[in-house]
Amino acid sequence: MARTPDSARRSERSRSAILTATRELVGETAYAKLTIEAIAARAGVGKQTIYRWWPSKGAVVFDALLAQSENPDGGGVELPDTGDIAADLKTVLRATVAEFADPAFDAPIRAVLTEVINDPTLAALYREKLEQPVHAAKVRRLAAAQRAGQLRADADLDLVVDLLYGPITQRWLPRSGTLDASFADALVETVLRAFAPVD
Amino acid sequence: MARTPDSARRSERSRSAILTATRELVGETAYAKLTIEAIAARAGVGKQTIYRWWPSKGAVVFDALLAQSENPDGGGVELPDTGDIAADLKTVLRATVAEFADPAFDAPIRAVLTEVINDPTLAALYREKLEQPVHAAKVRRLAAAQRAGQLRADADLDLVVDLLYGPITQRWLPRSGTLDASFADALVETVLRAFAPVD
Repeated sequence: MARTPDSARRSERSRSAILTATRELVGETAYAKLTIEAIAARAGVGKQTIYRWWPSKGAVVFDALLAQSENPDGGGVELPDTGDIAADLKTVLRATVAEFADPAFDAPIRAVLTEVINDPTLAALYREKLEQPVHAAKVRRLAAAQRAGQLRADADLDLVVDLLYGPITQRWLPRSGTLDASFADALVETVLRAFAPVD
Repeated sequence: MARTPDSARRSERSRSAILTATRELVGETAYAKLTIEAIAARAGVGKQTIYRWWPSKGAVVFDALLAQSENPDGGGVELPDTGDIAADLKTVLRATVAEFADPAFDAPIRAVLTEVINDPTLAALYREKLEQPVHAAKVRRLAAAQRAGQLRADADLDLVVDLLYGPITQRWLPRSGTLDASFADALVETVLRAFAPVD
């Protein structure tokens, strides 16, 4: 049976209310205590309405946070390119570090990572929708620097990205170590030194 | 009231049965579905016996895995020192990468990290009992290399450790990228290049 325009509108309203309720609750509740029941109550829908669209708590949380991101389809991400790779990477890494240090971002990122760690299906979705498009944008910016002679010709650009971002995750996860602009700058300077063009 | 030797022995037996049951269940069950009830049933004790010693599922899981580690008190960890920092770091990082790629280690590490991400109290315990002693051992080995003139004198050794290990976590968490010996070797070579002694 084809859906009427009215029922499509109602569906869209419910979906939107569920995603908003989920985002709010992720910020308010310990993640282990966040339930589908609580999301349904906050959104003013039945539990079955949620299960009609999402198979698990993790899936609805992931969609709620993806809908909030600037590039919900995963496309269109580009790093700044002023021609100065060190300056551009410092701009981007300072922003990343600031985001990880911001309590408003901290709770949702921890919620998504909790699911990503434990659910291989959601991890695949995370890689496809979030990680890979952003990783590809980083590699594009590094490739431009490589063509400009600012990185050695044989640099493995995937490894460059992991060296720039891995230490941030490493410090952030167990809340060890400082996440500030000077850490971001030190990361950029060290990694660029490792991949400096060979004379 | 002082405990009798018999009740102390019974306590020790219950405690040990609980930790063993927890380790077994972590390997068998999706972490979100692992419950105190299931641990109690497997160990043949009442739920209240578990709650007498541990405040949460995370706390008992953490202790179960800590008891399994080679250095449950967090002391005594040393990295190999053959005098060749590159060879020694490759030995250690290849072993780390192999551990992360091993399904038998994968489930318990994911279980502990799930708790560490979401529970600041447990994260503090994790830093104190596991992360800091191992981090300190890595820094000691790097300091010896620095004294031997194999690393630049101004190298920030905490940053060196994060650059060596962060990319492993970064690839392992969302199951992206390959974790193998050549990745370990590339990490060591790149990071040592960044901190090569200045002529």
